[in-house]
Amino acid sequence: IQSKLPNVGTTIFTVMSALATEHKAVNLGQGFPDYPMPEALTALVNKAMQEGFNQYAPMPGWMPLRESIADKIKFLYNTTVNPDTEITITPGGTYAIYTALTAVLQPGDEVIVFEPAYDSYIPNIEVNGAIPVLIDLKFPDYRIDWELVRSKITHRTRMIMLNTPHNPTGAVLREDDMEQLHALVRDTNILILSDEVYEHLIFDGIPHQSILRYPDLLQRSFVCFSFGKVYHCTGWKLGYCVAPADFTKEFRKVHQFNCFSCHTPSQVALAEFLNNRDSYLQLSPEMQQKRDYFSGLMKDTRFTPLPSYGSYFQCYQYDRISDESDKNFAIRITKEYGIATIPVSAFYQSGKDNKVIRFCFAKKESTLEQAVERLRKV
Amino acid sequence: IQSKLPNVGTTIFTVMSALATEHKAVNLGQGFPDYPMPEALTALVNKAMQEGFNQYAPMPGWMPLRESIADKIKFLYNTTVNPDTEITITPGGTYAIYTALTAVLQPGDEVIVFEPAYDSYIPNIEVNGAIPVLIDLKFPDYRIDWELVRSKITHRTRMIMLNTPHNPTGAVLREDDMEQLHALVRDTNILILSDEVYEHLIFDGIPHQSILRYPDLLQRSFVCFSFGKVYHCTGWKLGYCVAPADFTKEFRKVHQFNCFSCHTPSQVALAEFLNNRDSYLQLSPEMQQKRDYFSGLMKDTRFTPLPSYGSYFQCYQYDRISDESDKNFAIRITKEYGIATIPVSAFYQSGKDNKVIRFCFAKKESTLEQAVERLRKV
Ligand SMILES: CSCCC(=O)C(=O)O
Ligand SMILES: CSCCC(=O)C(=O)O
Repeated sequence: IQSKLPNVGTTIFTVMSALATEHKAVNLGQGFPDYPMPEALTALVNKAMQEGFNQYAPMPGWMPLRESIADKIKFLYNTTVNPDTEITITPGGTYAIYTALTAVLQPGDEVIVFEPAYDSYIPNIEVNGAIPVLIDLKFPDYRIDWELVRSKITHRTRMIMLNTPHNPTGAVLREDDMEQLHALVRDTNILILSDEVYEHLIFDGIPHQSILRYPDLLQRSFVCFSFGKVYHCTGWKLGYCVAPADFTKEFRKVHQFNCFSCHTPSQVALAEFLNNRDSYLQLSPEMQQKRDYFSGLMKDTRFTPLPSYGSYFQCYQYDRISDESDKNFAIRITKEYGIATIPVSAFYQSGKDNKVIRFCFAKKESTLEQAVERLRKV
Repeated sequence: IQSKLPNVGTTIFTVMSALATEHKAVNLGQGFPDYPMPEALTALVNKAMQEGFNQYAPMPGWMPLRESIADKIKFLYNTTVNPDTEITITPGGTYAIYTALTAVLQPGDEVIVFEPAYDSYIPNIEVNGAIPVLIDLKFPDYRIDWELVRSKITHRTRMIMLNTPHNPTGAVLREDDMEQLHALVRDTNILILSDEVYEHLIFDGIPHQSILRYPDLLQRSFVCFSFGKVYHCTGWKLGYCVAPADFTKEFRKVHQFNCFSCHTPSQVALAEFLNNRDSYLQLSPEMQQKRDYFSGLMKDTRFTPLPSYGSYFQCYQYDRISDESDKNFAIRITKEYGIATIPVSAFYQSGKDNKVIRFCFAKKESTLEQAVERLRKV
């Protein structure tokens, strides 16, 4: 069969996870926790199954869950979102991003993407016939050069994609970024897609710059979230998309014929679970402790830290150790030292290599200790 | 926002389910059971969650589940399928169909679709820029006129979509259909997408004409299945796609950046559950009993039955009762008699109206009794 998508390969997460398994490596590669998820949440799912909530949820999602989300948004960001017309439950954040892009992108549209970029963005743009316009984040702080963005805007610019907290770097947007963004789009029809799947994992007391804080930006945005990432059940594949009613209408046109609806028992369970505000308020301090524990241990190695302000991830330079390409280096330390990571060049179309690898610190302390034990030898 | 998909409305299932709720109607509309799913299966999911199977499954699916599926295929159809390269687990059958179409359809490709057709097919073809070529099934037996199909083949024909057992009519393909199909495609590059989500729900001892029985057809096919439909947990949104390795490779290019992976605890549970062959062998006789119970009761009404050989559904003509359009009739009996159904014209692009409505008989006997009680008055 002739390929419609000849340039699409296999995601780096699949490649490195397979290599990790093959070499029985400690896996700080793909972003998932190795510690238990909240027991209260699994108990609620079991209860929902027992009570017979096993048939189709409504296509836009279980209404009580959408109401719990709207309540959380009001509480955290003081923004009122209509659960009926502005929230759609999805099988994960990646799916929400795919569906939003497919709902609006037309052949020839330009989409501004910052690199390093989560590896689904560019294929998702291209499968819709649209054109990614790639802009490097500044190295090594991975901030946005807004003057550079301005210079890339054309009459075909249809959308800007944002991601905060940022995968793979752990960078986060600041208030002045939002001001720059605002000034940039104000007099245009440019749409925003904001990937906020690490919403509740942000450190050092920095406020999360959600688009949801800014009603004037929200009116041109799709904002994508993940329950799996924040509640440590990445295998549940559940998330949601918040967007104004007319955007949500287009989103649902694709969703209703893509997955149609999502896992009912999890939705019933999360509707109740979310009503406990601690369920999300405690997440950032817990994850910050992991970052701190990991980066403390890493001081004993020859890796040079880059800052992480959020997400599951911290990046390190290895230039004091080797001048190999990051892919070779990542593969070699998996094989030789039994420690799997993600080479950050995989998040650049060009393969740009700053000699940086990404570690996932969302792990048990014993796993982090074992990992750093091995890294000390590198 | 200007719509990319101006012709896409809201699915009839959403419309009729909402109307049913509003009027507290007995709901024989959207296809889902109202009786409990197997307890052994919910117990296995709970066990999987407790044991910590809550993180990402591999992108193509949990390998033991793919192995159980391959074993079932060998047992039922005597065909060997490679679980590593030819089976992909998906969040439902509808998603599998969407992903297969998106993986191969290019703008301008023609796709043969038989009407009445499940309402996702045509929007999924069109969102990829391809062109649906619509062919009516013969009325009232809903069989394929293969001569007519032959006359619609052009050099742009890229695919034929099949669905057996058929939604909404309960028609099933026969061995001579498969011979005709074979003769038609033999010397062409035409692909097949076979929607077999009602695989285990086929009556009167008729063998299911799965593409999986025919290795020479399978080599050009995507074959889509649903766990939700057959195990009475439509809200779990889990299914799979079987396709030759080179097709599967293209399928996964879209899947890995659409949903990426599926609900892990359900996959772990189904891997074990499927090993009990009774779990699927008992399904057809159970559902046949429901069909027979329902159609027996319906003899007391003025509706004229069309035959149902499989699926959850049986269609009835109401021409002895009214000459209204089927949509008006379906809406009116929901409002006036409290009984929700699906008007079959919703499955025709043209809105062609044979005065037929579809009933879902996958319900408790008491529900069917209550429904027919009301239908007797119509
Ligand atoms: C589907 S992989 C999702 C993202 C992730 O886990 C990662 O970046 O490691
Ligand atoms: C997503 S609705 C799936 C099909 C169905 O349930 C129906 O035809 O009623």
